[in-house]
Amino acid sequence: MLSEEYGLHRVVHPEGVLPQQAERLDPSLPLRDTELLIEVDSLNIDAASWAQIWRQGSADVQKVSKIIAAIVSTRGKMHNPTTGSGGMLMGRVSQIGARHPANSRLRPGDRIATLVSLTLTPLFIEEIRAVHPFTERVDVRGHAILFASGQYAKLAGDLSDAVALAALDVCGAPAQVARLAKPGMRVMVLGAGKSGTLSLAQAKRSLGGKGQIIAVDVSAPALQTLRELDFCDVAIQADATRGMEVMERVSDATGGALCDLVVNCASAPNTEMSTVLSTRKGGVALFFSMATSFTAATLGAEGVAKDLTLLMGNGYVPGHAELALNLLSTDDRLRKLFEARYPVVALTALPTSNSGAR
Amino acid sequence: MLSEEYGLHRVVHPEGVLPQQAERLDPSLPLRDTELLIEVDSLNIDAASWAQIWRQGSADVQKVSKIIAAIVSTRGKMHNPTTGSGGMLMGRVSQIGARHPANSRLRPGDRIATLVSLTLTPLFIEEIRAVHPFTERVDVRGHAILFASGQYAKLAGDLSDAVALAALDVCGAPAQVARLAKPGMRVMVLGAGKSGTLSLAQAKRSLGGKGQIIAVDVSAPALQTLRELDFCDVAIQADATRGMEVMERVSDATGGALCDLVVNCASAPNTEMSTVLSTRKGGVALFFSMATSFTAATLGAEGVAKDLTLLMGNGYVPGHAELALNLLSTDDRLRKLFEARYPVVALTALPTSNSGAR
Repeated sequence: MLSEEYGLHRVVHPEGVLPQQAERLDPSLPLRDTELLIEVDSLNIDAASWAQIWRQGSADVQKVSKIIAAIVSTRGKMHNPTTGSGGMLMGRVSQIGARHPANSRLRPGDRIATLVSLTLTPLFIEEIRAVHPFTERVDVRGHAILFASGQYAKLAGDLSDAVALAALDVCGAPAQVARLAKPGMRVMVLGAGKSGTLSLAQAKRSLGGKGQIIAVDVSAPALQTLRELDFCDVAIQADATRGMEVMERVSDATGGALCDLVVNCASAPNTEMSTVLSTRKGGVALFFSMATSFTAATLGAEGVAKDLTLLMGNGYVPGHAELALNLLSTDDRLRKLFEARYPVVALTALPTSNSGAR
Repeated sequence: MLSEEYGLHRVVHPEGVLPQQAERLDPSLPLRDTELLIEVDSLNIDAASWAQIWRQGSADVQKVSKIIAAIVSTRGKMHNPTTGSGGMLMGRVSQIGARHPANSRLRPGDRIATLVSLTLTPLFIEEIRAVHPFTERVDVRGHAILFASGQYAKLAGDLSDAVALAALDVCGAPAQVARLAKPGMRVMVLGAGKSGTLSLAQAKRSLGGKGQIIAVDVSAPALQTLRELDFCDVAIQADATRGMEVMERVSDATGGALCDLVVNCASAPNTEMSTVLSTRKGGVALFFSMATSFTAATLGAEGVAKDLTLLMGNGYVPGHAELALNLLSTDDRLRKLFEARYPVVALTALPTSNSGAR
C-alpha cells in the first residue's frame, strides 16, 4: 500500500499530507512491519538550517542544542521551521520490519546513513551528546524510522563515517552535475562547501579537460583549497548576494560568454541573481541551495528578460550515493580534504544534563 | 551600462542589489534617458499575492485597497512581502527616454502592458480608483517606470485590454508548455485559472490529438468549462494539497503510467507533492505557481525517491506575449471565456477619498 510506503501513517497533523509536508510526525514505537528502526548516532544538519540555528542560538553550543531538541520534540522530526530544510542521519540498524525492502540486504547492527531528508524522517531524541559546529553535526542518542520508500546507504569500506556522511548528505548535487556537464562547457559553481566541492570535482571529471570551470565563494582560503586541488580554472572571491558584481567578473573571466551551467550550492540566501546573471542565454541554472527562493529565481530571470532553464536540484538521482563516495575513494587529495574538514571527532558530552529533548 | 539597464539606480535599500531583491525602490521623477514613463491605469495582481491580500483584508474591498496602497507607498513597488510575488500593469506611454530601446517603436499615448513583474517595477500610486476582486485587478492613477531591460507588449488589435492583460500576465506558462509538450505525451495541468487554462490550450495544440490531457482543480464549474472547451480528456476534481489522493486518481486515469509533464498553475500553496507524485519517473514537473516552495518540491521528490526533472517556470520566453495573444485570437471559444472572465468593467470609484496611497 503506497500510503504506508511513504509513511502517511506517521503523520499527526495535518491529516492526509505526506510526512515532509506535515507539521508533526509520530516517532513512537512499536515499529510497523513496513518500517526500519535506526538507533541514531549523529544528525548532519543541512547547511541553510545550521546557519539559521547557529545565528538564532547566538553561536552558543548550549543554546543551539536546546533549539534542535525543541524542534525535534515539537515536530517529531528535525525539520527547521524557518528554513524548511533538514539534513540526514547516521546510525545502526536496530530492527527491520518483515515487509521493509531492506530486509534481505541489511542486518541489525549494520551502520547506515539515510538518504532521505530529516524533514520527513520520524525522529525521537533522548539525549544530545555533542554539537560539532564546524562540521554541522550533532551527536545524539535516540531512534529514527525509515519508511519502505526511504533510501539509505550502508557505511563500510575505506571512508570514515564522518567523511561518508558529509558526502552522502549532498550526493544529489554531483550526480546532477554528472548528467548536465559535458566536455567543452563553461561550468560555474557557487559556494565552496561540501556540495560545491563535490560538484566541482564531478565537473572536472565530466569536462575531461575541455571547457572552463569557475568557482565563486566569499572565502579566500576555501578558494585557495580548490585551486590546490586543481578543481577550477578560475576562482572568484565575491559576495554572491551582489548579482551584478558577480556577473561582471564572470563575464570578464569568460570573455563575455558567461556560463553554460551554473550550479548554486550557496548556504546563504539571496544568491539567485548571481546565478541567473552568470548563466548564458539558453544555459542552465541548477539550484541546490536550500536557501533558494522560488519567486526570487523566477521573477528575477523574468525581470532581466533572460531565457534560461531554471532547475531545482532534485536530491534523488539513481546511483547518487555510489557516485559521491566514488569521487572520494578515487581522489586522494579530495578525500584528504574531506578527512581534514570532517574529522573523526571524539564525543564531547555537553557540560550539563541539559539535552532538553525529553 | 548594464546596471542602469537593469535599474540598479532606482534601488534605495539595500544598496547594490537588483530591483527585484530590493526592499524599497525610488519611483520619483524626473525620468532618466534610459527609462520609459508609464501613466498607469491598472495593476493585475499575481494570483498568489491576491489570495493572500484578499484574506488579510477579510474580503473587504476598502481594506484590500489600503493594504495595496500601503505596500506600494512603503516599497515603491507592488511587491507583496508575504508571497514575494507581484503581477504586471497596463497604462499609456507618457514619456520615452532618448536611450530607451522602445524609443523607435513606441510613441507617447500608446497603450502598453509591462511583461516584467511588479516586484521590480518602480511604482507610485496617487489614487486607487477601483478594486475588481473577481479579475484580481486594481484600477489606479499613478505612474510606473520601465527600465531599458524591461519587456512590454503594445496593446492593439482584436482583444480587449482586460483580456490581453489577463493573458499577458501569465504568458510565460503556455510558452514553456509549447517547448515541452510533444505529441503522444500525457500532460497534466494543475489549476484551472488563467495560466492553467492557457497551458491547457497550448498543450491541446502541441499534442495534436495524440496523447492525453488531464486537468485537475478543486472547482467543478471550472472543470466543466474546460471540458466544454475540449481542453482536456480527463477532468479530476480534487484538493491538490492532498498529494496521495491526486496521485491515485491520476494513476487510475493513466492506467498506472502517470504523466510525462505536469504543469503546476495552482494559486494555493502546498501543491508540490501532487505535482511530484503525478509525474512519472523521468518526467518533467514544471512549476508556475508563485506559491511554490523550493524546499517542499526538492525535499519532497527526494523523500519519495523519485527521479524527475523539477523545473521552475521562467516567466520570460522569447515570443511569449505573441504566443498567448495568438492562442486567444485564434480560438473563439477561449477568447469568449476570457471575455466573460475578464470583462471590460466600468470604473467604480471607491466609496470615500480613502486611497491611502499618499
